[in-house]
Amino acid sequence: MPYQAFDSAAAIAFAKQRGFLPAEADVHCREIGDGNLNLVFHLSTSDKSLIIKQALPYARCVGESWPLSLERARIEAQVLQAHGKVAADWVVKVLDFDLEQYAMVEEDLSHLQLLRKRLINSEKVAAMGQNLADYLAQSLYAYSDFELDPKAKKALVSQFINPDLCLITEDLFFTDPYREHERNDIFPASLATAIAFREDDALLAQVAELKARFLSCPQTLLHGDVHAGSVFSGPGELKVIDAEFGFFGPVGFDVGSVIGNLLLAWCRHHTLGNSDYAAWLESELLSFWQRFESRFSVLLQGSKDVALANARYQQRFVAKVLDDTIGYAGCELIRRTLGLAHVADLTSLEEGPRAAAEQKALSLGRSLILASEQRCDIALIPTLLKTFA
Amino acid sequence: MPYQAFDSAAAIAFAKQRGFLPAEADVHCREIGDGNLNLVFHLSTSDKSLIIKQALPYARCVGESWPLSLERARIEAQVLQAHGKVAADWVVKVLDFDLEQYAMVEEDLSHLQLLRKRLINSEKVAAMGQNLADYLAQSLYAYSDFELDPKAKKALVSQFINPDLCLITEDLFFTDPYREHERNDIFPASLATAIAFREDDALLAQVAELKARFLSCPQTLLHGDVHAGSVFSGPGELKVIDAEFGFFGPVGFDVGSVIGNLLLAWCRHHTLGNSDYAAWLESELLSFWQRFESRFSVLLQGSKDVALANARYQQRFVAKVLDDTIGYAGCELIRRTLGLAHVADLTSLEEGPRAAAEQKALSLGRSLILASEQRCDIALIPTLLKTFA
Repeated sequence: MPYQAFDSAAAIAFAKQRGFLPAEADVHCREIGDGNLNLVFHLSTSDKSLIIKQALPYARCVGESWPLSLERARIEAQVLQAHGKVAADWVVKVLDFDLEQYAMVEEDLSHLQLLRKRLINSEKVAAMGQNLADYLAQSLYAYSDFELDPKAKKALVSQFINPDLCLITEDLFFTDPYREHERNDIFPASLATAIAFREDDALLAQVAELKARFLSCPQTLLHGDVHAGSVFSGPGELKVIDAEFGFFGPVGFDVGSVIGNLLLAWCRHHTLGNSDYAAWLESELLSFWQRFESRFSVLLQGSKDVALANARYQQRFVAKVLDDTIGYAGCELIRRTLGLAHVADLTSLEEGPRAAAEQKALSLGRSLILASEQRCDIALIPTLLKTFA
Repeated sequence: MPYQAFDSAAAIAFAKQRGFLPAEADVHCREIGDGNLNLVFHLSTSDKSLIIKQALPYARCVGESWPLSLERARIEAQVLQAHGKVAADWVVKVLDFDLEQYAMVEEDLSHLQLLRKRLINSEKVAAMGQNLADYLAQSLYAYSDFELDPKAKKALVSQFINPDLCLITEDLFFTDPYREHERNDIFPASLATAIAFREDDALLAQVAELKARFLSCPQTLLHGDVHAGSVFSGPGELKVIDAEFGFFGPVGFDVGSVIGNLLLAWCRHHTLGNSDYAAWLESELLSFWQRFESRFSVLLQGSKDVALANARYQQRFVAKVLDDTIGYAGCELIRRTLGLAHVADLTSLEEGPRAAAEQKALSLGRSLILASEQRCDIALIPTLLKTFA
């Protein structure tokens, strides 16, 4: 059957045809996609539920004028499977994938809640930093040059070349926010800073460096979009979803996305005077990095490549991951404030607090990007946060 | 017709069938392959000559026990075509390529001589550094992130994934020479240094760094093997051949190969007391880098990627190319002395001078690799060469 965008009836028929639901079952189906790119159906019967996610041939948030390859659905399913193989505890289970309909059947996670919602609601999600660190350490190590046979790695690099979705990141992270562009969405109070950034040569130079590394540094198979809206959490559980931006890129990009999103939440809560919660975010952020660094470093010691097994080199590698992490976290703060895709942490604030929180995000973003040119220490972050006290 | 390794008769039949020679022509054919991997036939009639190069499904220098994908022949033809498109003056012309026989028809360059021979014979090849610099600046810029559309670049990265031949470099450049390995070929007088290298932690750490960048830094489409035996030269002409190691890697790898090979020649002539020729080599090496740096920098100013158009970033990019260049030149010196593939510059020397020249190559190689950890200046090379005075 040629590709066709599902409606509820088609999603139900698909699930039945693939054997996930009995032919005669009475199925309740809702379209729940609130993301920017896809259709997402929640299907349930009296004793079972599941998710069907289908790619549309264009960006849902913009419309048919922004065509996107359906191939991204294959990539998403395969990234989730690849990460799931080595970090199963923290990755949504992919039950099936159909190459004709670009549709994937996933386990239903609706007993969990998006991490961004919990962060906005000041919930202290238990072991959040630790779970995210373990997920990233295990999955990012497993597809690195340390672990993979060089031929197998090259085959995977090719399999995960993801031109359409990488282009979105290349444009929306690294290009648009630093120039005038119709895709930008700038809150009036942030306009002066946005304009100043366009002439900030040191900032532009380091953003170029980070973009170049995004383009040409296939260290490992990234999730590619680990923001707080790609993570579900609940008591004792944390699951990552939405991997269509996956590709081989620099380790620090995923790690920096996590830190950037925790800092966005921090900007919100600090501005609202929720100092206890802001302090919790800061401490989770630090323990996230420390746990990632120590787990990843231990994994590196098992390097299968004898030339890369050198401990002194591995320390330098991890140090460079931190530099990248700091830089990409800074890019996330800026692109979520000036670019096309905003976050509710900031947009749900009243005008006054929003202006103040955005100023913090922009200032922090700039400082982190500039700092990432040199060797970084994670202590930089608490130091910067103190300047807003 | 399924793939079959050619003999002379088959090579002639192939050239006639593809229309390069008339069916009734009286053709003289010699197999002239002196390389490590392929069959090379020189075909001539009374008024025409051409070269047919065919890949063998194994490494010729080792035998059938080292199988190699025939795919490398496609890659070689396509790299030469890609570089020829943007740097035609310096690249052998590919007239035809047959995917079934993995055979390529090239223009005959036998009026020229391999650069390595000229260097061994103390010939001051006019404009050598300048021609090599222009070839590399134009071809390495043209396939970089500065120039290519990101989607086109990703398609090319995939097209030029070259697992078999990259593995040879990964092993023979970066792994074997620094450990005990049956593929190594160590001149007795160099054994003590070889053994010391295996415990030299700072050296091993930086070799790991350079290997990691070789594995995961697809900045541009490299030739992949620009040594003095891959370059033909004659009055007013310089042509690069043998691109089967081509793939997307760091700019400095090709540039460093050139410098490494000039330094190998320098080690020979300095040891033989040919101080005038050694001084010429040194000055060509410096003008090679300076010309490359200035041409490449000018090309960068035309960056099609607006985010990478920042001049401050571009200066840093070129500075990092020099660091890589210095490091990879050092690797070339060491792997040509301790590894599987030696060069006549050293092996054709008598025992005493060979020992002395190899010591210089190893010491220089180590110093260059160690220096490449930090920001380098090209003046480092004259400084190091003076220590052998």
